[in-house]
Amino acid sequence: MTTNSVLISEVGPRDGLQNCQAIMPTAAKKRWITALAAAGVKEIEVGSFVSPKLLPQMADTGEIVRHAIEIPGLEVAVLVPNLKGAQLAVEAGAHKITLPLSVSETHSLRNIRRTHDQVIDEAKAISDLIQTLPEERRPHFEGSLSTAFGCTLEGPIDEAVILRCAERLMAAGCDEVGLSDTTGYGDPMSMKRLIRAVRGVVGAENLTGVHLHNTRGLGLANVLAAYEEGITTFDSSLGGLGGCPTAPGASGNVVTEDLVFMFESMGVDTGIDLEALMATRELVQAALPDEDLYGFTPRAGLPLGFKGAPVPVAAE
Amino acid sequence: MTTNSVLISEVGPRDGLQNCQAIMPTAAKKRWITALAAAGVKEIEVGSFVSPKLLPQMADTGEIVRHAIEIPGLEVAVLVPNLKGAQLAVEAGAHKITLPLSVSETHSLRNIRRTHDQVIDEAKAISDLIQTLPEERRPHFEGSLSTAFGCTLEGPIDEAVILRCAERLMAAGCDEVGLSDTTGYGDPMSMKRLIRAVRGVVGAENLTGVHLHNTRGLGLANVLAAYEEGITTFDSSLGGLGGCPTAPGASGNVVTEDLVFMFESMGVDTGIDLEALMATRELVQAALPDEDLYGFTPRAGLPLGFKGAPVPVAAE
Repeated sequence: MTTNSVLISEVGPRDGLQNCQAIMPTAAKKRWITALAAAGVKEIEVGSFVSPKLLPQMADTGEIVRHAIEIPGLEVAVLVPNLKGAQLAVEAGAHKITLPLSVSETHSLRNIRRTHDQVIDEAKAISDLIQTLPEERRPHFEGSLSTAFGCTLEGPIDEAVILRCAERLMAAGCDEVGLSDTTGYGDPMSMKRLIRAVRGVVGAENLTGVHLHNTRGLGLANVLAAYEEGITTFDSSLGGLGGCPTAPGASGNVVTEDLVFMFESMGVDTGIDLEALMATRELVQAALPDEDLYGFTPRAGLPLGFKGAPVPVAAE
Repeated sequence: MTTNSVLISEVGPRDGLQNCQAIMPTAAKKRWITALAAAGVKEIEVGSFVSPKLLPQMADTGEIVRHAIEIPGLEVAVLVPNLKGAQLAVEAGAHKITLPLSVSETHSLRNIRRTHDQVIDEAKAISDLIQTLPEERRPHFEGSLSTAFGCTLEGPIDEAVILRCAERLMAAGCDEVGLSDTTGYGDPMSMKRLIRAVRGVVGAENLTGVHLHNTRGLGLANVLAAYEEGITTFDSSLGGLGGCPTAPGASGNVVTEDLVFMFESMGVDTGIDLEALMATRELVQAALPDEDLYGFTPRAGLPLGFKGAPVPVAAE
């Protein structure tokens, strides 16, 4: 079920920055994204098209997308909450659009004031928009099942509800669904169980990515479980940016540096130069001097004799 | 290969405290150990019999052992570096003795000024001592292969060397061997590979426990890999005590609270009441006010609706 390479999707510029108090200047965002790509990061969620009143940190997403799509080989992803966001994403030229659907309807109503039906309607409208575009300009469209491993308002969510949401997102026109452990409630067993169940209804090829948090320290263990189940795309955030915790070490997102270290140690290629990746922390710290950056590997350093994974040879 | 219960061996009073600057008062150690046992911790490494000049934090180990063995049902473990330590452990009445053998001979020489041959001689002498005791007073004797996943001085250690050390410890009279990732160099793949290899030479029943560090954030992922490989005993330290890091979050030992949370979430019984376990942090913090305690779960709190694992029903 496992592969010898994975895709690390860096979400720091979106999930990280939108959860920080301070606003990273546009020029610093561009430098950071450029440096990440130069370190070998192949997919970056660079921002979200949301109301700048609600999230001023994301107000420059259009400009950031236009910068990022000029970087050769980089897959440029954005989060959108609705059709309007998708229109802006398409105008800017994003390669990938993610629409979150909270499987906890209570959370969905509190968070974006929309029922499941209403989110599915947005998904259909976005899909229709994409279909009007010439094929080469159509972004990849992912529906992300958030609070999939439990909700701070509802607790565990009935698996039947999650599967129905997954089916409806695919029927609405998504190219794939993703699983998000928004609350850090997941564990290795629930990870494997839910991945199997969702793949059972949408097909394995339509669930390839997970977005996991490290709220209770299980982030990398959950990544390992998902990898063993055949998942190949993993979201994470440089320096665990975005947790904005009140207590040290309690970051929200899985830390990219530790994630890359784990896979490379395991002999699983990420395509990322770990030293170059870690060096981008300085850019972030300079632009956000009051923000704590997390991660164990950057502090401990790489093991003596560490080589990383061999680059896989493509099959003939 | 997996089981529905595991043994968590708390090493905070030994591995934790011996790496802290401050010395925990004897009375506080006793209260902490009593509270840990009351929370359901079934095995505690309570100290080490080493020179009090080298490790004044461990000077009261004899008294601590004599206290701990009065707690019903608690397995009382100690670390010893040599025959002299084992004699003191036996006199105090410890149930389990662990002798570390660093598979990196460079590390062994620097750390305890002994070659592999010399450590094996100590193991034989300890085994001979144990054989002189009446059967009901014989402690369980473990040889722990430290730096098994790599050494900060030598880098990766040749697997043949590790297997030879494991065989020699068993031949010297150890009841079992353990694997220690002293340096936090291990990853899930190396974990599985080395467990299989060592079990291949000593038998699966003679390698049941691992002692893992969280130096690069992979602690729980490595625990998961070891569990999947059939390992059933896991060392960890309350609050990650013992890392004594210069940077926040960079604890050394796997954090007991997060480890218990992971297994209980997975439906794997630890026998430990997580709330009661987390409450013992206050005892430690009161006794060591300058020490940082780590752990994600204590800060985030338990998930809404969290029930923990069902208690396994013993087979008839």
